[in-house]
Amino acid sequence: MHFHQNGYVSADPRIEEAAGYGIDRSQDLPDEVDVLIVGSGPAGMIAAAQLSQYPEVNARMIEKRGSRLVIGQADGIQARSVETFQAFGFAEEIMREGYHITEMSFWNPDPENPEHIIRTGRPKDDEHGISEFPHLIVNQARVLDYFAQFAVQSPGRITPDYGIEFVDLAVDSGAADSPATDHPVSVTVRYTAGERAGEERIIRAGYVVGCDGARSKVRSSIGRTMTGDQANHAWGVMDVLANSDFPDIRTKCAISSKHGNILHIPREGGHLFRMYVDLGEVPEDDARQVRQTSIDEIIRRANAIIAPYSLDVKNVAWHSVYEVGHRLTDAFDDTDETDPGSSCPRVFITGDACHTHSAKAGQGMNVSMQDGFNIAWKLGQVVSGRSSTELLRTYSAERQVTAKNLIDFDKEWSTLMATPQEELPDKAYLEDFYVKTAEFPAGFMTEYTESMITTSSKHQDLADGFPIGRRFKSARVQRSCDANFIHLGHEARADGRWRMYVFADRAAPTSGEGDAGTARSKVEALASWLESDPASPLVAYRREGEDLDALIELSVVYQQEHKEFSFPDVPTVFRPHVGAFGLEYVEKIYAALPDEDIFAARGISRDGAVVVVRPDQYVSGIFPLEAHAEIGEFFAGVFAPVK
Amino acid sequence: MHFHQNGYVSADPRIEEAAGYGIDRSQDLPDEVDVLIVGSGPAGMIAAAQLSQYPEVNARMIEKRGSRLVIGQADGIQARSVETFQAFGFAEEIMREGYHITEMSFWNPDPENPEHIIRTGRPKDDEHGISEFPHLIVNQARVLDYFAQFAVQSPGRITPDYGIEFVDLAVDSGAADSPATDHPVSVTVRYTAGERAGEERIIRAGYVVGCDGARSKVRSSIGRTMTGDQANHAWGVMDVLANSDFPDIRTKCAISSKHGNILHIPREGGHLFRMYVDLGEVPEDDARQVRQTSIDEIIRRANAIIAPYSLDVKNVAWHSVYEVGHRLTDAFDDTDETDPGSSCPRVFITGDACHTHSAKAGQGMNVSMQDGFNIAWKLGQVVSGRSSTELLRTYSAERQVTAKNLIDFDKEWSTLMATPQEELPDKAYLEDFYVKTAEFPAGFMTEYTESMITTSSKHQDLADGFPIGRRFKSARVQRSCDANFIHLGHEARADGRWRMYVFADRAAPTSGEGDAGTARSKVEALASWLESDPASPLVAYRREGEDLDALIELSVVYQQEHKEFSFPDVPTVFRPHVGAFGLEYVEKIYAALPDEDIFAARGISRDGAVVVVRPDQYVSGIFPLEAHAEIGEFFAGVFAPVK
Repeated sequence: MHFHQNGYVSADPRIEEAAGYGIDRSQDLPDEVDVLIVGSGPAGMIAAAQLSQYPEVNARMIEKRGSRLVIGQADGIQARSVETFQAFGFAEEIMREGYHITEMSFWNPDPENPEHIIRTGRPKDDEHGISEFPHLIVNQARVLDYFAQFAVQSPGRITPDYGIEFVDLAVDSGAADSPATDHPVSVTVRYTAGERAGEERIIRAGYVVGCDGARSKVRSSIGRTMTGDQANHAWGVMDVLANSDFPDIRTKCAISSKHGNILHIPREGGHLFRMYVDLGEVPEDDARQVRQTSIDEIIRRANAIIAPYSLDVKNVAWHSVYEVGHRLTDAFDDTDETDPGSSCPRVFITGDACHTHSAKAGQGMNVSMQDGFNIAWKLGQVVSGRSSTELLRTYSAERQVTAKNLIDFDKEWSTLMATPQEELPDKAYLEDFYVKTAEFPAGFMTEYTESMITTSSKHQDLADGFPIGRRFKSARVQRSCDANFIHLGHEARADGRWRMYVFADRAAPTSGEGDAGTARSKVEALASWLESDPASPLVAYRREGEDLDALIELSVVYQQEHKEFSFPDVPTVFRPHVGAFGLEYVEKIYAALPDEDIFAARGISRDGAVVVVRPDQYVSGIFPLEAHAEIGEFFAGVFAPVK
Repeated sequence: MHFHQNGYVSADPRIEEAAGYGIDRSQDLPDEVDVLIVGSGPAGMIAAAQLSQYPEVNARMIEKRGSRLVIGQADGIQARSVETFQAFGFAEEIMREGYHITEMSFWNPDPENPEHIIRTGRPKDDEHGISEFPHLIVNQARVLDYFAQFAVQSPGRITPDYGIEFVDLAVDSGAADSPATDHPVSVTVRYTAGERAGEERIIRAGYVVGCDGARSKVRSSIGRTMTGDQANHAWGVMDVLANSDFPDIRTKCAISSKHGNILHIPREGGHLFRMYVDLGEVPEDDARQVRQTSIDEIIRRANAIIAPYSLDVKNVAWHSVYEVGHRLTDAFDDTDETDPGSSCPRVFITGDACHTHSAKAGQGMNVSMQDGFNIAWKLGQVVSGRSSTELLRTYSAERQVTAKNLIDFDKEWSTLMATPQEELPDKAYLEDFYVKTAEFPAGFMTEYTESMITTSSKHQDLADGFPIGRRFKSARVQRSCDANFIHLGHEARADGRWRMYVFADRAAPTSGEGDAGTARSKVEALASWLESDPASPLVAYRREGEDLDALIELSVVYQQEHKEFSFPDVPTVFRPHVGAFGLEYVEKIYAALPDEDIFAARGISRDGAVVVVRPDQYVSGIFPLEAHAEIGEFFAGVFAPVK
């Protein structure tokens, strides 16, 4: 953690100094806001947390519920989400309280006695070491708590505006990009709780982010509709405290028996578990009758499915019945995607508001959070004047495809989960599918295609372990100044900054400073250009008084061992002077580990490479060390000139 | 973490349900308390945190300061302390914000140019892998914050009573052990802040714990005095924000130059560091003149010592001058240690109140915390009627020896640190001493001798990797129910419970339950005895309505791999029914890891062993699996019969 740069911090260093709109944040929802987030679920909450790092943006989040969520429905946390939590500073804490999925068991009818189930497989959850982060089960309410804490401890001090619901909105269509109409969205909201309950107000917003779930009113207000298959298979779901002689009651299981199927998910705390219990095909004329299935009936079916074992349910924390639907909107914003000349978007939808699917792959909350993370930093940059509004078009382009891929995957998985073993191509089909496809549900298959923020694959071969468009896969290095072992990617905070990782060529850093004319290595030449060339992104887009690393955090990784050089040998651009006292910051200078060389592990060229990573941790591009102009051009597409 | 056993917990599971005195804790300090802690430093705060786990004990902590500590002087956190933080639930969080010491550099005069220093060595801080926990530097104020949070989230809900100072006390000497005089200590306190400032009150206390520092009034009130050598060497100490070209400015260093010595300690946050700057011998007639040394003079000397490098100090967070003194009281309580028939102690002293030494080995806060941890669980057990008052005699017996060992070590270390390199036996003498003795300053050399809570070494050979009297050294195992990889020792919470680790013999657990007559293994026979024999500690000392694991947490570790058995195969005593719903708790059943076998790593007999660990994590005893009577007798010496 980086603190004390403005003077001694005695209390929790996670609590940053308030700034901008965070200094005197109004209690009441103001009449005019830059960004209005509708709904405080996973997508809304991460967006608020991220925007709280842009205190110059007046962002608010309304929530129709009167207070904090008590029991959430989502609970599956893929490794990619834990990686995201790391950037928001709470991975360790949530790992400590969550259930860790280490193995998954598969149960099927005993060939000797088909009325009984037996365990037929028990693969590891992460058979191939996809991530250094675990696969967790944690109640959604706790995930929201952690994001809320990050938001209120961030400079913008955003807290949810509880007890206010979204009614409708209208966008002043002639308004795009005109400074005179910075807040062209008229949003009607209504108080649902407290003294003002029932009162309606009009709020003027610059942008609206709909995180208001499957029945999203923001979606309908912009005329988007969900399309997809009709629900046809029903599941009862229950979170219960129970005793059982089922040997895998604390292991994630796919259970297939003559009496139906169960997806069994142990939960945090040592006792609670969730069961998705197969309620069978829903007849077309069911008229939602299946939704009336009682908890007793769900428990009865569960007991029939797990025979010869049984459940003795002591307490039901939550239960519900749902039908699987796979539905998607054709775009995630309010632009006319058939008209490239249309206005830039003003309204966005995220999460269940634009894509729904089964709960079975444990994906919903995870994908929603990535939606929220994606749109939030883009809004942060645009509203604070760092980028043109064109950046906002990339949200729908990137996330709609991701959602479509998810739906395709989930259709296959949830269908398999509802198929009796004897109808599958072979007995281990489900288990094999689970192991083979693990990287997708772990959240690492998202790959953004070429755009203003993602380069072509022209220089991919300089670092093929960092696929362009995918999230930056961390590896360990050794910090030069203190010999600490550091997971490079874990140093990236969700602070809205871009990151440039400079992997050095073979030349060792040497004391004394070169300059562009007399540079003794490609790193020195790059450093000199970055520090002083008018085309350098560190020079061109910083505002008066901002630290060198305000917009882009630079890290350098040398091929030499850490004992072979010291920070004074390294070009000054990699050790910027920061904060109120202009203190030199030397913690971003690293050495490859002799036994765990990041250059080897990530296929980085020994001639060096520059890896550029966006604020939400996706690799934007890879460049040769000497491609100064190309780097400058890339950032010229991202950032707007200082006004 | 274990929660939900009394029903669904929606909010932070670290916040336990209030109980006993925690339910309606009085704002004002009451007239009568069971335990009065004087001072909220590291010893007092850990004692409060631990006693908050005994909500039936009315414990309060007074602090003359009006509010939270802002800047503490201590900062060195040895690995044993991080291990302790783990038990209090905040190791991960504090590790994230602390500075990690990975290496230590040694600088000495350059033989070519003795006016300049050069680096002569750079050993690893933990060369021999003593602990899985790191060596940290964190401001004491933050350590206190974390303990305070644990205390207020524990059932007893203890918070510091700020603004009240200790004046004096008197013990009603005829009172020992009589129920009529449960509160025989009259304590005079005075308000130092707020409306009542200046007011004195008499508080009746059962016990008083003096954690009031080197000038302890509690110590003087019981007539104890510090004895030891006189101070004779002065050091200036400063916490500063500075720029420097000294290459090891972010590495811990011992610097010895022609101009004196520096112990250099980088601090958390990336910029701050502490320097202990040698101010030389103090003449006998100095009359505390050295204490007047200015910060400018300390900085000037530091610059002279580190030449050819220099410091440009931008901000001074704190500075002081002190003279090294090594002083100790002959006992840590108010008993007459020459009279074995004397009353049991009523007043205890901890930390700097009974032992002072240099700050150089980074030991003070650590040893003080272990003092507080030690006395607190003992008071918890005695006041809640679980143990006889005899238990309290073990505090002084255990901790006075530990403090004496520390002082002996520190004398040697601090003398070496103040000795010019040319006067040492050889050039690498200091560095070699540092590497060779690392286990002591890491906090792992404390070894309690035989007492009512520590057995003889009779059965030590059954598990020689768990030395009796030393802290339980964790190793990894695999949890049976969910295949999670678990560091066995990290599961031990500072909840006041004892722990019994049953390492099984070769026999695998088999389904169906044996009993003492027909037990199919020594583990089954032990389990049966533990569960139902009147002499079993689980039977003899539990009160009506308490869970089986209320006083002693049982864990069992089998030699078989986790896939070879399931929890229903394991004797029922290892899967107790707990909480409001009587839910079976199966998380304390473990398997040895194939590649990292705890039996091999800790030298545990393949015939099994029982390892008993006290609430503060020290090994109390080791027993053969069949030594039922011996186990019963040991606990009969610890616990009092249920009244």
